Amino acid sequence: MSVIYDRVALIGLGLIASSMFWAMKRAGLAGEVIGYARSAETRAAAREIRLCDRVCDSAAEAVEGADLVVLCVPVGVMGAVTQEIATALKPGATVSDVGSVKGAVIEAVAPHLPAGVHFVPAHPMAGTEHSGPRSGFAELFDGKYCLIVPIPGSDRDAVDRLERLWQGMGAKTDEMDADHHDLVCAVTSHAPHLIAYTMVGVADDLRRVTDSEIIKYSAAGFRDFTRIAASDPTMWRDVFLSNKEATLEILGRFTEELFALQRAIRTGDGELLFDYFTRTRDIRRGIIEARQDTDAPDFGRVKRG
Amino acid sequence: MSVIYDRVALIGLGLIASSMFWAMKRAGLAGEVIGYARSAETRAAAREIRLCDRVCDSAAEAVEGADLVVLCVPVGVMGAVTQEIATALKPGATVSDVGSVKGAVIEAVAPHLPAGVHFVPAHPMAGTEHSGPRSGFAELFDGKYCLIVPIPGSDRDAVDRLERLWQGMGAKTDEMDADHHDLVCAVTSHAPHLIAYTMVGVADDLRRVTDSEIIKYSAAGFRDFTRIAASDPTMWRDVFLSNKEATLEILGRFTEELFALQRAIRTGDGELLFDYFTRTRDIRRGIIEARQDTDAPDFGRVKRG
Repeated sequence: MSVIYDRVALIGLGLIASSMFWAMKRAGLAGEVIGYARSAETRAAAREIRLCDRVCDSAAEAVEGADLVVLCVPVGVMGAVTQEIATALKPGATVSDVGSVKGAVIEAVAPHLPAGVHFVPAHPMAGTEHSGPRSGFAELFDGKYCLIVPIPGSDRDAVDRLERLWQGMGAKTDEMDADHHDLVCAVTSHAPHLIAYTMVGVADDLRRVTDSEIIKYSAAGFRDFTRIAASDPTMWRDVFLSNKEATLEILGRFTEELFALQRAIRTGDGELLFDYFTRTRDIRRGIIEARQDTDAPDFGRVKRG
Repeated sequence: MSVIYDRVALIGLGLIASSMFWAMKRAGLAGEVIGYARSAETRAAAREIRLCDRVCDSAAEAVEGADLVVLCVPVGVMGAVTQEIATALKPGATVSDVGSVKGAVIEAVAPHLPAGVHFVPAHPMAGTEHSGPRSGFAELFDGKYCLIVPIPGSDRDAVDRLERLWQGMGAKTDEMDADHHDLVCAVTSHAPHLIAYTMVGVADDLRRVTDSEIIKYSAAGFRDFTRIAASDPTMWRDVFLSNKEATLEILGRFTEELFALQRAIRTGDGELLFDYFTRTRDIRRGIIEARQDTDAPDFGRVKRG
């Protein structure tokens, strides 16, 4: 793989940015990677583990001379960060982001960018429940999708170049518009996260079942919810507030369906339940076949004898 | 480990029974293990892969002379199976089960057992989304809990002996009464499964997002739901119908909480969301510390470089 951008600036140094750094290094995709994080503690941690070739103390300094600037901050502060860097951007540079919501980010970022700077929003659909500069690893994007969301008037060469970068970091890329992106993510990510948070909150709140019981017996299903409910609170607060409409739409649909199943339980309609549960199995099979998960019975957790 | 029962009969040869067989073999816990399954296809598969030392064509034949009989059939047919074997049981034998619900199983099984046979209900809290005789593996119970649910008048020696068997198969054991068991499982297992089924059903039903999009982008959170929503439909139908009250109670609580979070999204109450999401993180930490899951950022799915 050869260098795609001579200089890349990562603004924000959490899970995604730190994984991007290691993935770019693995494949030699960037001549130099400059990093910036708002918190002095994060910058110190980054310097300690040699995350980025250079860590700057201001966002404006970090983007100077960069061919690609990637905003890796919570969706709620994308606009403010763009204002900080706007005048320091190199003419002809590409600005991208990794936000989980695209409509609100485009609205917040695009108006602040000077003419001659290309904006190519993107969203790598990969993550873990960990956050911070120490949580990244080069393999995070391997085989996962990164959605590229060009805006009207996006420069084709700038879009293609960013796609090559993501492919070089191991991801598969797809393009779609912002509205469709936000709906797809409400279904595959935002609503599931809110539901997982809710279920974990209910368990925590139940007086007649102790916390230690919930934890001890979690392998029976609950555990799968706690992983995604442990994700970064700031990031997720911003996601829900900025993808409000699509998330609420899906949650409305979810509640409708849940009520129908609750009713079937109450009335003893075993046939409805059986048919419903049979249908959901097929989706799982599709995911296994698309290699977006492992089929190992133990989920890859235990070494097999 | 030495032999705990000279002869064990497994009635039903799905994921749990087949894993029990391999786990008993691994530690030499049973002199001989006899198996029975209602379907001729399952019996043929069991014979082919040498699951059980002997596979019988009737349940009554399988339990003859057995010191321990374990009912590994869906909760809804426990009563009928017990009627089939009742007169063939050896005096002094222990009958147990592995059902996910205990109140309804005790009600269905206990009345049919002859005097002098000990009934010790149990529930291993481990599983995968796979089912059938070929899905079992010896490590399934390692480090997981098996809840033992003695009934009033349960023979102490019979209870202790069954606990030793489960410990020998790698499980940790705890005792609790049936009502508490059913509530704990409604929280940690039954409600999460119904919620996962619902979310997968919603996704499947949404016309504006294609199935292939849902599958491709599932790594963003949705995937964690599909695993548990792929579990055996018959088993889960029976679980919900036989643990109706506790499941509906937890689902009611869940809906309340979900509405509160939906309202916070609608009104833009970021503080409520942030606080809620911060609280749920602690539960996850507890699960990691209790070693009921792995903390690996990639969930153990990918070999790290």
